[in-house]
Amino acid sequence: METLNTEEITIKDIAKVCGVGVSTVSRAINNHPDISPKTKQKIADAIEEYGYIPNNSARNLRRIDGKCIAVVVKGVSNPLFADAVQIMEEEIKKRKYSMVIRYVNFDEQEVDVAIELAKEKKLAGVVFLGGYFVREKKKLQKLRIPFVLSTAGANVDNISAEEYSVFCVDDEKEGYRMTDYLIRLGHKKIAVLSGMPDDASIGKLRLKGYKRALKEHGIAVDEDLILHMKRDIRFYSMENGYQMTQELLTGRKEFTCIFAFSDAMAIGACRAIADAGKKVPDDYSVAGFDGIEMGDYYNPQLTTIKQPIHEIAMESVTMLFEILDKKSENVRRIFSCELLERESTRHRKVL
Amino acid sequence: METLNTEEITIKDIAKVCGVGVSTVSRAINNHPDISPKTKQKIADAIEEYGYIPNNSARNLRRIDGKCIAVVVKGVSNPLFADAVQIMEEEIKKRKYSMVIRYVNFDEQEVDVAIELAKEKKLAGVVFLGGYFVREKKKLQKLRIPFVLSTAGANVDNISAEEYSVFCVDDEKEGYRMTDYLIRLGHKKIAVLSGMPDDASIGKLRLKGYKRALKEHGIAVDEDLILHMKRDIRFYSMENGYQMTQELLTGRKEFTCIFAFSDAMAIGACRAIADAGKKVPDDYSVAGFDGIEMGDYYNPQLTTIKQPIHEIAMESVTMLFEILDKKSENVRRIFSCELLERESTRHRKVL
Repeated sequence: METLNTEEITIKDIAKVCGVGVSTVSRAINNHPDISPKTKQKIADAIEEYGYIPNNSARNLRRIDGKCIAVVVKGVSNPLFADAVQIMEEEIKKRKYSMVIRYVNFDEQEVDVAIELAKEKKLAGVVFLGGYFVREKKKLQKLRIPFVLSTAGANVDNISAEEYSVFCVDDEKEGYRMTDYLIRLGHKKIAVLSGMPDDASIGKLRLKGYKRALKEHGIAVDEDLILHMKRDIRFYSMENGYQMTQELLTGRKEFTCIFAFSDAMAIGACRAIADAGKKVPDDYSVAGFDGIEMGDYYNPQLTTIKQPIHEIAMESVTMLFEILDKKSENVRRIFSCELLERESTRHRKVL
Repeated sequence: METLNTEEITIKDIAKVCGVGVSTVSRAINNHPDISPKTKQKIADAIEEYGYIPNNSARNLRRIDGKCIAVVVKGVSNPLFADAVQIMEEEIKKRKYSMVIRYVNFDEQEVDVAIELAKEKKLAGVVFLGGYFVREKKKLQKLRIPFVLSTAGANVDNISAEEYSVFCVDDEKEGYRMTDYLIRLGHKKIAVLSGMPDDASIGKLRLKGYKRALKEHGIAVDEDLILHMKRDIRFYSMENGYQMTQELLTGRKEFTCIFAFSDAMAIGACRAIADAGKKVPDDYSVAGFDGIEMGDYYNPQLTTIKQPIHEIAMESVTMLFEILDKKSENVRRIFSCELLERESTRHRKVL
């Protein structure tokens, strides 16, 4: 038994204490504009003081109704997704659904997590953010609730538009775009910080684009300049980029430029170069991929491929709701990225 | 109706396809060491191919048993918490509990969120990460399940150790520690990038420490050098730090040093200084607070107050379980921080 009996506090008690009507308290709670800031503050104070919790029965009913969307995010610490999650949350709330987020590690199967979640609670739909979905077709079909793949490396699996909705960028094309840009700056020896050796998703596709650009410019691919991330370090992280760049710097292979397959790895590369007493972009140019906020604030500012993460997030949720409302069939939308030319890359001085 | 009938795939089917016994498949799934990598790969391939999902009934039972811990995180995008969440997840999984994370914005009440969550599912306990808990005592008492406050600005509310478990740093003392350090470097005009004007939590406490250090060194507090974060920009963010620093740089007040109450704001400050054509630390010293990973990789590396976030996370979860097992009373543990002297601060040149 608790010592305080605040559990039975109702909206009427709050109204009484404040000397206002119940409807005024209700308006204050729901943030209506037609209430004076002073009264609102008074009510807010009383609500806090008495520990009153708005008995939002409508909201609870909705929950019981299963009006919940799950967002399953691959990669706990990917800063690219923090904004996407916030946008999705707002859109989901606007439609009076509740949202549950689950973060899965790179070694977990996101589809299994979603299936487990669907057992636990009645989900209306699922957004997969940043997953891979290689050979996951059959598992996805077991979900039996609508879902969309957002910013996912789903190209690999040749998933067709009729079966699932996919919102992503063309990783091969964007890998090509950046490499082509770096070559035009005069770089011929471009090292890449890529995915795992057995990558079958975004890393593989970006690398394919890199190789195509070299080939088109008549530059031979040098396998020694293709570095793969370490398995025992967080994937696509600053630390992974740092380690790979240290290897490059202490190795015998000449290079004038680094193309990292994430901005975080590019930042790790910049730090490794600084620690070696060298400068970006004076000694080495460095380019990233993603367009995370930190790239704007880093010193030097990062040249990168900016993924339109806001648009992707918005469109993913909007389409999921259209599918739920049976207003749309499945779609496959490829978003175009933007190449941001900034401080970390420059023309290679011709010697 | 689905076109594929993979739903009825059992562990027996997988064993049959692979030409092994059921126990071998089971061992492969549970990652036993006594199985050859080749067989393991074969089984893994078959599991993927047929979309078999281990029917982990024990795990489901546990869920129904309510063996679930909720982690409620204040501040969606605080990089300080990403690691903490991962540590907590591991510890919770080790004890065979499941974990659910909820992220709440700065304008949401984390206790309300926890109470709602507890209605939705049977929770065994709650970890509040990074919350404020000003005047929340009564609400907290309504939770009726064990909880701990982790990295929380709970000092303000004078919560006593008997009532709740608290794991945090002494924000006043750490604010003092950094300011004292900067003064010893020769700085007298130290601008602070602090919390909201009406902050009653960590921002208030760190500012108190700042003022105490100035006073002890006989330096008058100059209110014009105390900047408060903007209400309409994400709190403690790079952007908020950038904007405040722009104000400082275009204002008339002289300063030689900036102490930001988060590393993210310190990074924003560094970028604003670079954009003004000035250098850190040559023209201005900049110090942060938190010890986030980015501070190691930033250029220059950030001088900061490093919170022992790993220890705090580990201890919070360990104690929550001890409380659940009735092995411990509530405790209040204050963790000491470490001052990291790095590249972004230096001795003020005496003119």
